[in-house]
Amino acid sequence: MSHFMAEFLGTMILILLGDGVVANCLLNKSKGQNGGWMVITTGWAFAVGLPAFIFGGISGAHFNPALTIALAAIGKFPAAEVPTYIIAQMLGAIVGAALVWLTYLPHWAETDDKGAKLGIFCTGPAIRNLPSNFLTEVIATFMLVFIILGIGTVKAADGLSIGVVTALIWGLGLSLGGPTGYALNPARDLGPRIAHAILPIAGKGDSDWSYSWVPVLGPVVGAILAGLVFVSVF
Amino acid sequence: MSHFMAEFLGTMILILLGDGVVANCLLNKSKGQNGGWMVITTGWAFAVGLPAFIFGGISGAHFNPALTIALAAIGKFPAAEVPTYIIAQMLGAIVGAALVWLTYLPHWAETDDKGAKLGIFCTGPAIRNLPSNFLTEVIATFMLVFIILGIGTVKAADGLSIGVVTALIWGLGLSLGGPTGYALNPARDLGPRIAHAILPIAGKGDSDWSYSWVPVLGPVVGAILAGLVFVSVF
Amino acid sequence: MSHFMAEFLGTMILILLGDGVVANCLLNKSKGQNGGWMVITTGWAFAVGLPAFIFGGISGAHFNPALTIALAAIGKFPAAEVPTYIIAQMLGAIVGAALVWLTYLPHWAETDDKGAKLGIFCTGPAIRNLPSNFLTEVIATFMLVFIILGIGTVKAADGLSIGVVTALIWGLGLSLGGPTGYALNPARDLGPRIAHAILPIAGKGDSDWSYSWVPVLGPVVGAILAGLVFVSVF
Amino acid sequence: MSHFMAEFLGTMILILLGDGVVANCLLNKSKGQNGGWMVITTGWAFAVGLPAFIFGGISGAHFNPALTIALAAIGKFPAAEVPTYIIAQMLGAIVGAALVWLTYLPHWAETDDKGAKLGIFCTGPAIRNLPSNFLTEVIATFMLVFIILGIGTVKAADGLSIGVVTALIWGLGLSLGGPTGYALNPARDLGPRIAHAILPIAGKGDSDWSYSWVPVLGPVVGAILAGLVFVSVF
Repeated sequence: MSHFMAEFLGTMILILLGDGVVANCLLNKSKGQNGGWMVITTGWAFAVGLPAFIFGGISGAHFNPALTIALAAIGKFPAAEVPTYIIAQMLGAIVGAALVWLTYLPHWAETDDKGAKLGIFCTGPAIRNLPSNFLTEVIATFMLVFIILGIGTVKAADGLSIGVVTALIWGLGLSLGGPTGYALNPARDLGPRIAHAILPIAGKGDSDWSYSWVPVLGPVVGAILAGLVFVSVF
Repeated sequence: MSHFMAEFLGTMILILLGDGVVANCLLNKSKGQNGGWMVITTGWAFAVGLPAFIFGGISGAHFNPALTIALAAIGKFPAAEVPTYIIAQMLGAIVGAALVWLTYLPHWAETDDKGAKLGIFCTGPAIRNLPSNFLTEVIATFMLVFIILGIGTVKAADGLSIGVVTALIWGLGLSLGGPTGYALNPARDLGPRIAHAILPIAGKGDSDWSYSWVPVLGPVVGAILAGLVFVSVF
Repeated sequence: MSHFMAEFLGTMILILLGDGVVANCLLNKSKGQNGGWMVITTGWAFAVGLPAFIFGGISGAHFNPALTIALAAIGKFPAAEVPTYIIAQMLGAIVGAALVWLTYLPHWAETDDKGAKLGIFCTGPAIRNLPSNFLTEVIATFMLVFIILGIGTVKAADGLSIGVVTALIWGLGLSLGGPTGYALNPARDLGPRIAHAILPIAGKGDSDWSYSWVPVLGPVVGAILAGLVFVSVF
Repeated sequence: MSHFMAEFLGTMILILLGDGVVANCLLNKSKGQNGGWMVITTGWAFAVGLPAFIFGGISGAHFNPALTIALAAIGKFPAAEVPTYIIAQMLGAIVGAALVWLTYLPHWAETDDKGAKLGIFCTGPAIRNLPSNFLTEVIATFMLVFIILGIGTVKAADGLSIGVVTALIWGLGLSLGGPTGYALNPARDLGPRIAHAILPIAGKGDSDWSYSWVPVLGPVVGAILAGLVFVSVF
């Protein structure tokens, strides 16, 4: 399997399961409605961990342009492959979001809250304060990338490191997800936002483009900073 | 132990623990009543993972006719064994459901909601729309089988892969279970539905046979598609 | 360390953490009050898994007279050691329960519900129907012992099997704990019940001795049946 | 990387993620508000487990002066390094708490409850009874250190022991955290309390210095006792 295919499929699964758990919690009449923060963060943890287990040995399982860029910035990933990875990640995210729409098809028309419907696809701030929201994404993505790089330094039984990555996503959501919904990943946010804009979702509102740069630039800045700090301290 | 016995016992445990957690959440006066989606999905995850750990080395731990058929369709399982597996799975599911009835024996008469009592045994749609419900089961079971096949390609420490399968069931329930209750498995749904029909459950209603083909055919179609896509991309 | 000491300390930790999580959920003003079934079952899972990890290599980490008796009944444990194990388990359970009382010392006087206070120490039925309650404990303990024996047949990475045992306790609580609170273990129930009777707990009620034989005999019967079935099918 | 840097960074991450999850649950308008005890204890478990995985092989991943002191007291850690470790832990805790303040920056002014804001940084008693609160911290930290030492005696697959430590933190919070919020660690409590005192947190109250000795001395006493008992029984 090509790196492109692995990043495409992995990010598709990531968004299908990740946006899927938010759909389950927010859509009216869904069996998991009002499942709460534990349901959402657990769902996102497995959404990352499951494809990472499968595709880690093929493409490295980035699924995240910020991680790809940061690894390239510190010389741990070939710069020439960065565009391929980002295109695969973005396409996978869009397709994954479309699959969420299909999986929950009858529920969109039964849900009035336009903000909830957007919130299933992409992140939004709990309190709209763009500099602070940006800072939150920088800090959270810094931790994501710094800890991923740290995990890579530790000898573990085959497959166990992916369990630690799963715990990392779980922990970041639980602990740092409160202000912005922890995008941590430009593809995770922008891909589904594009899907929200183009899909014929029943009763949808606007796609909040004025916020869309925060979960793109914040993660990129946080990831690069993490890479630079990592190579200077380890 | 024979393959038949392993599939029978494994599916029996799967349904005892899986339908059991729904009983705990839905039956009146049960200590876990209203436990919520986290309780239900966690219970189902272990319901699959525990017998899979024990019987994986004997029968492959299918416990699911859709998986058995899909593996046979792509040449990874001998077609001649398919009927044996399916009979064992169906019988195990029926016996497991009967054990749930016995475990919660005094609670059935204390619960008025006939739909809840049926929902303990088998799945039903959150919004009744059979083509959409079918599509949801196809997508969710596609992910189940595709990821199981993917897990099989990864070298992991002894026993760890079953942990990943457990996470898979957990994640699928959290993320894709909202519209139909994630049958994913014809035996899981049809076996307990038969048990519901034949057991003398206090104050039970009908067994909703008009829906019963969805959680049988949807998983079979999704599983076969997953097998075909898997062999074409990996 | 002697087998006696390992069983004593292990069962003490088991009850301190197990009864502790119930205290956290039920005692007035406790920070985990009304934590719910997920909190309780997760707490009990680690209450078993943590000491099992430490003492498994020393005494086998039974912590449960029903398991000890069943293993002896099928020739997997020396009958001569059974009394030593049971005494250690009972003493450990009593001391563990006393530590729960001390840990939550100011909370007992702040809690009016005498039934809740007893329910922290030992189990009680959701619906009082002693034959049914007995049957529930037989079925649940059968699964406990059968699956533990099954886990022992599987080759796993060092330490991983204890993770599966932890998942087993978690799963049994989630799925089968609703009717009786899943004693599964005579020492787990009778030891703390004795502690409840003799400790000067502020505002305590009676210790419900009329129910006390159910969580003793039910687990013993279920465990022995599981042992006999296991040796006949594996 | 130096021991100092590992203890500094590890404790910083511990507090960022640990105090972060409390912020998520307690701050007004946060997406995880009212997440409950399961969210808090799961967040703290990963807050410890993630940096322990990364830094365990460098500094031993103490992140806790009580553990450092106890290990030195029983000759398992060089006494000369104790001050270095404690300084690194305290500084890491203060910086981690400042990062929580920044991550949730717009939320402090939106939250009226001064006690909740303090409770994000450091622990406080559910029922103010200093001798009892001290005893609770002694018992809980005794279990922490005794079980950590016990885990160290068991042969496990590479990396798995850190999973058990994660389960330990999870379990202690679930089971013993009700009366005092389970400080277990002088740096975890005193460091963020200092941060609370010096940071310009919007609408903050006092830092409750009269309680501050309990989560410092209680853990130290419990840890030393655990070390002494451990070496006498193992």
